[in-house]
Amino acid sequence: MSIMFEKVALLGLGLIGSSICHGIRAKGLARHISGHARSAETRAVALEIKLVDDVHVHAADAVKDADLVILCAPVGACAALAKEIGPHLKAGAIVTDVGSVKGAIARDCGPFIPQNVHFIPGHPVAGTEQSGPRAGFAELFHGRWCILTPLPGADSAAVAKLTQFWEGLGSMVDTMEVGHHDLVLAITSHLPHLIAYNTVATAADLETVTDSEVIKYSASGFRDFTRIAASDPTMWRDVFLNNKEAVLEMLGRFSEELAVLQRAVRWGDGDTLFNLFTRAREVRRGIIAAGQDTAAPDFGRGHKPK
Amino acid sequence: MSIMFEKVALLGLGLIGSSICHGIRAKGLARHISGHARSAETRAVALEIKLVDDVHVHAADAVKDADLVILCAPVGACAALAKEIGPHLKAGAIVTDVGSVKGAIARDCGPFIPQNVHFIPGHPVAGTEQSGPRAGFAELFHGRWCILTPLPGADSAAVAKLTQFWEGLGSMVDTMEVGHHDLVLAITSHLPHLIAYNTVATAADLETVTDSEVIKYSASGFRDFTRIAASDPTMWRDVFLNNKEAVLEMLGRFSEELAVLQRAVRWGDGDTLFNLFTRAREVRRGIIAAGQDTAAPDFGRGHKPK
Repeated sequence: MSIMFEKVALLGLGLIGSSICHGIRAKGLARHISGHARSAETRAVALEIKLVDDVHVHAADAVKDADLVILCAPVGACAALAKEIGPHLKAGAIVTDVGSVKGAIARDCGPFIPQNVHFIPGHPVAGTEQSGPRAGFAELFHGRWCILTPLPGADSAAVAKLTQFWEGLGSMVDTMEVGHHDLVLAITSHLPHLIAYNTVATAADLETVTDSEVIKYSASGFRDFTRIAASDPTMWRDVFLNNKEAVLEMLGRFSEELAVLQRAVRWGDGDTLFNLFTRAREVRRGIIAAGQDTAAPDFGRGHKPK
Repeated sequence: MSIMFEKVALLGLGLIGSSICHGIRAKGLARHISGHARSAETRAVALEIKLVDDVHVHAADAVKDADLVILCAPVGACAALAKEIGPHLKAGAIVTDVGSVKGAIARDCGPFIPQNVHFIPGHPVAGTEQSGPRAGFAELFHGRWCILTPLPGADSAAVAKLTQFWEGLGSMVDTMEVGHHDLVLAITSHLPHLIAYNTVATAADLETVTDSEVIKYSASGFRDFTRIAASDPTMWRDVFLNNKEAVLEMLGRFSEELAVLQRAVRWGDGDTLFNLFTRAREVRRGIIAAGQDTAAPDFGRGHKPK
């Protein structure tokens, strides 16, 4: 692809920020990448592995003359960044973010972005359980959805350009209203993470089964929960603090359903169990049919010979 | 390896049974494999793909002269099989099983096995979300644990021989008391499966988010739950019906922990969330260190280019 932006500024250089850097380089989407990270170590790594052309202690310096600014920090850190960069943004620039929550971003960052700048919140639905500037890779977004949540009255040309940028990184792009985004992600992402964290915590606190037994026999189901429970704690704390209403709604429904299942176990109601398990299998088939996972057994996880 | 058994009989030819067949063939552990399956289709497939040397409508015919008999049926079907084969077992033979619950197997099958036969319940902690005679592969057990739960007074030579058999299939073997096995597996396997099924059911019943949205954005966490929720419904129904006490105990603890997390979300208690998420990450590191999973991001799941 040809160059879309003269200068892109990435504020935050963790898994997502560094993957965007690699993707921009791989496709030649920008002439210049400036970066900002709070941690000196991250800044040093970003230069060492050539994620960015220059790196700045202050976000305000990184965004100078940038045509595209992407906030890649945890959701709870974005408002302070927006406040800092607001006065330094170039007229006509696009500002976006990558947070897993969109209502809070629109509410808390929006007021700091000047009227002559296009603020379009966004969320690439992609990731791994790894964190940090060395975790990124250009293919992270390939075949994954990126959801843009333009605010009322957003400039359609700017939305089209940002769409094209994400498509350049390999994403499929969808647009959604901020509130609906937060509800969809509460069930597809936030609830599963909270449940995974909770399952791991339950296992860690047993008197009758040791931690080493839990680890030893984890291949039987528990292991998959630990993978998503290995994600960055700061990022996830911010998600739950900033999508409270939707998460509490989904948690309420989850607990209701769980009470039904628990009762079926207690009373030996095999039909209720069998029917629910069969329905769940259908959802899995839909996910494979939609190309969001493969049917390869065990995720094609390697089996080590002894 | 050299031949350990003249004749092995496999009662049930699904994922586990067919994988044992492939493993026996690959390592030359038996001279002859007889099979039994209830379904005519499974029996036809088993002959077609040469899982077994002969296949029988009646389990009693399959076990004739067998030195090793392995029950590979759902837990709830094992007692009827044991009753059927009891009078036809060869003196000195070993009978074992592969069920995820051991207390109920010992209680319900034990009485049908004659005194001159060695009954040693067992559980290979390995599997994928696939089912049926075509799902098996020889490497399924490589590097995975197999738990044997010998009953009081078990013959140590027979236990040693069965241990050697599972090691021949590539497993690491551990022994455990039946009740402790059921507690360990309740937390590492049964609870995670129940929670996964429940999460999928919760998502399928929302009015505000469509099924196609859930599927489209499943890569953000939900997907991993659907994989384990795709396992065989009959097998899992039987697990929950037969390990009721331990599962209810773990469910009670899970709900207690979840109430604490829910309260932290409601009251914006970021420290509680952060501390719990950080602890969960440590458990994940233990699992990787123990070789029960790889640290490869996203399970090394392929990213499709657009």
